[in-house]
Amino acid sequence: MRIICLLFLFAAAIADETYIYKTEYLQTPVDHFSFTNNETFQLRYLINDTFWRNGGPIFFYTGNEGDITMFAQNTGFMWELGQQLDAMVIFAEHRYYGKSMPFGDKSYAEPKYLGYLTSTQALADYVYLLDFIQKSYKKEPTRIPVIAFGGSYGGMLAAWLRQKYSYAVDGAVASSAPIYQFQGLTDCTAFNNIVSKVYKVSSQNAVRNIKKSWSVIKNITGNDEGKLWLSKEWKLCKPLNSSQDITDLTEALEELYGNIAMINYNYPTNFLAPVPANPVQALCDRIDQSNLDGKDLLTALGKAISIYTNYTGAVKCLDFNSTAGSLGINGWDFQACTEMVMPMCTNLSNEMFEPSAWDFKKTVDDCYKKFGVRITRDDLAILAYGGKEAEYSNLIFTNGLLDPWSSGGVLKSNTRSVYAIIIPDGAHHLDLRSSNSKDRSSVISARENIRNIIQIWLKLYKQTYN
Amino acid sequence: MRIICLLFLFAAAIADETYIYKTEYLQTPVDHFSFTNNETFQLRYLINDTFWRNGGPIFFYTGNEGDITMFAQNTGFMWELGQQLDAMVIFAEHRYYGKSMPFGDKSYAEPKYLGYLTSTQALADYVYLLDFIQKSYKKEPTRIPVIAFGGSYGGMLAAWLRQKYSYAVDGAVASSAPIYQFQGLTDCTAFNNIVSKVYKVSSQNAVRNIKKSWSVIKNITGNDEGKLWLSKEWKLCKPLNSSQDITDLTEALEELYGNIAMINYNYPTNFLAPVPANPVQALCDRIDQSNLDGKDLLTALGKAISIYTNYTGAVKCLDFNSTAGSLGINGWDFQACTEMVMPMCTNLSNEMFEPSAWDFKKTVDDCYKKFGVRITRDDLAILAYGGKEAEYSNLIFTNGLLDPWSSGGVLKSNTRSVYAIIIPDGAHHLDLRSSNSKDRSSVISARENIRNIIQIWLKLYKQTYN
Repeated sequence: MRIICLLFLFAAAIADETYIYKTEYLQTPVDHFSFTNNETFQLRYLINDTFWRNGGPIFFYTGNEGDITMFAQNTGFMWELGQQLDAMVIFAEHRYYGKSMPFGDKSYAEPKYLGYLTSTQALADYVYLLDFIQKSYKKEPTRIPVIAFGGSYGGMLAAWLRQKYSYAVDGAVASSAPIYQFQGLTDCTAFNNIVSKVYKVSSQNAVRNIKKSWSVIKNITGNDEGKLWLSKEWKLCKPLNSSQDITDLTEALEELYGNIAMINYNYPTNFLAPVPANPVQALCDRIDQSNLDGKDLLTALGKAISIYTNYTGAVKCLDFNSTAGSLGINGWDFQACTEMVMPMCTNLSNEMFEPSAWDFKKTVDDCYKKFGVRITRDDLAILAYGGKEAEYSNLIFTNGLLDPWSSGGVLKSNTRSVYAIIIPDGAHHLDLRSSNSKDRSSVISARENIRNIIQIWLKLYKQTYN
Repeated sequence: MRIICLLFLFAAAIADETYIYKTEYLQTPVDHFSFTNNETFQLRYLINDTFWRNGGPIFFYTGNEGDITMFAQNTGFMWELGQQLDAMVIFAEHRYYGKSMPFGDKSYAEPKYLGYLTSTQALADYVYLLDFIQKSYKKEPTRIPVIAFGGSYGGMLAAWLRQKYSYAVDGAVASSAPIYQFQGLTDCTAFNNIVSKVYKVSSQNAVRNIKKSWSVIKNITGNDEGKLWLSKEWKLCKPLNSSQDITDLTEALEELYGNIAMINYNYPTNFLAPVPANPVQALCDRIDQSNLDGKDLLTALGKAISIYTNYTGAVKCLDFNSTAGSLGINGWDFQACTEMVMPMCTNLSNEMFEPSAWDFKKTVDDCYKKFGVRITRDDLAILAYGGKEAEYSNLIFTNGLLDPWSSGGVLKSNTRSVYAIIIPDGAHHLDLRSSNSKDRSSVISARENIRNIIQIWLKLYKQTYN
């Protein structure tokens, strides 16, 4: 089972314009760690300084794998809290995504261009940008205090920014950041076990039906007539043709179940695709019978997944290649092939998925075919960021326990000034979303905690430096 | 005044064989921060595991700008303490020095090879090596605790290693580490003011004579006959010919006075050159008259500096180009041209040197001519390591107040677990030297303090992880 692009959440979201900002670009070195070249590129960032006053802080979103405008429009909590705390709000785009292409159209062409797509370089971009902002805006000899925010991979970056550059960032909110989702730190079954659990809470029948569906798909698509039938039944844009197509289909399905679990919010949202409130329940409701089998099962399953693939009914045909959005997926694939290798597998006891081992060698071979880059070890992120031995301070980790990525999250802390806030019924970085009339007390209280902690940090900062 | 290679201490030392180790090499990535290439090189390190027992720590020397065997033979304190505390002792060579050449003979040829000579890459080398050592040696699930040691630029690396990779290094001893010797953090006059002070303590006459000598040199060498006279009088290998030669000579002299202050130990040593005990006093004694002037002054001065340039009498002619050792000087020049720009100047009130402004533009131009690399800002080290806003823990900074580099050192600490140990009468990283019957109580007590603090760290480590 290959699940390496699940972090990618917002890419295909429709960027509405709830929040207003200026779009700016900063000329930034392509390579912060050598002097072999002096290439620079235009790093995009979005900035709003209209509520910044009274010595307020900078709220700095460490952009992750997608167009930064999507993150700006889907991280309402930062805007709401920013207004309350007189903050300047900045969203920095991650290099190689959106409009921040170090080598323009060639950026993804070959390793000599693409090779600078690393988290370490991205963190150095953010430090470079923060330094520029400080010099442009600060009025006192001391820095403007900075709080970093990020969700998912962006949350990992927020935590790592604080770890490596504590002098540039005074505190960080790392929401649903699976910093332990690396070799040896987390069992590779953990992610898929949470996915199964989330579905099982909604419907035991549905989980049994999905488990059954894997062999049914295999059986029915075992011949050309079956392939044709399923292609028509599910309105696939590209009819099933080969056994590789079947493998791709089942992998895409696995990924889709994970994605829906991640965005299992209790009100309608519009990320990867428009979905109703509680989409896992909505999906399960459509396959909640105990006697489904064969073509009937697949027909029902087709309707079930359309909760996600075609909730509006506007999609003419189903393209599984685009289920995770198209904008940044190549970039994340490259990162997951190099620094961010996250082992995923399923064991026999999983009630929803078929058993599947983690195969590092195959991953490496596939990556080499795709990008021309071959890594020789699976723990580069641990080497760079320390895994469970890393030391943090002034950091808030938040995790929803219904988020599959909580498998690799920081769920407890023994360190003073490092907080692990749990949202028991929360999905993927729910706390970073704007407040909603449907919000349950768990997320309301998590956001209050975050605000209180940030206020303490800012107070301590003033006591120390002013 | 251009003093950028003063950190370079040990390069020309004679490596005796007081301490025994195995020489090993580890295949290490040339670029730890991109995937544009997969070049590797052989990083040299020296290791002794013969006293390592009872769950003892690793003592890890973060090699600086020179052949690592010199540091191994001139850091006796690590060996002595290592034996006392059952430590494994490792000396890691800094890339681009000694035998750790990333591109063999081409390493210094052009920026595309030399550009990977950065402190950030060197730190990543050390983390890579430590990871390898841990995997090779550790017997428990927990890591072997690691204490980093370094002197001068090596001390800066030890501190920065702890700052950036606290999960790989549990504590660090940064001896005479001028981590504040960067733009805006320390007045550019500070270094030369300490040099003057050190000489003035030995002899006010000598300081006045040195101050006078700058104009005397200029006057006498103003014509060909004077150039010839001084070349013969001082036995210069390359006779003075041009005004540039005079500039080079005075710069070399300035550097030489600084070097002697650095190694102003109270027993004979053998670093840059063999020198007697208290070499500053020995030098001053030879120009300690109030009425010296003209050629008499320069004749006396020539004898004075021979304390350093020819103490054994074995040197046939004086080559100022080699006063700071030859092995690693190019490398340090490159570092001082890129990341490690350390502004130096002298103001009117300095009693020993002529006034001289810091000229960043000229430095940049000279660097471009020499290396083909042109930096655009003078604060890259602050961007990378935070200057005075950096946060440290489990760190010991030691400084001798008679060491000119104490100008950029950490002389006080308000942070728990960060210690600033002062050796009032100490020269450059005296504390890292092996114990000597001439040791004064100040250095003896500094070493005792270091040992006690390290023992506390190791105890805490055991309590936390075992």
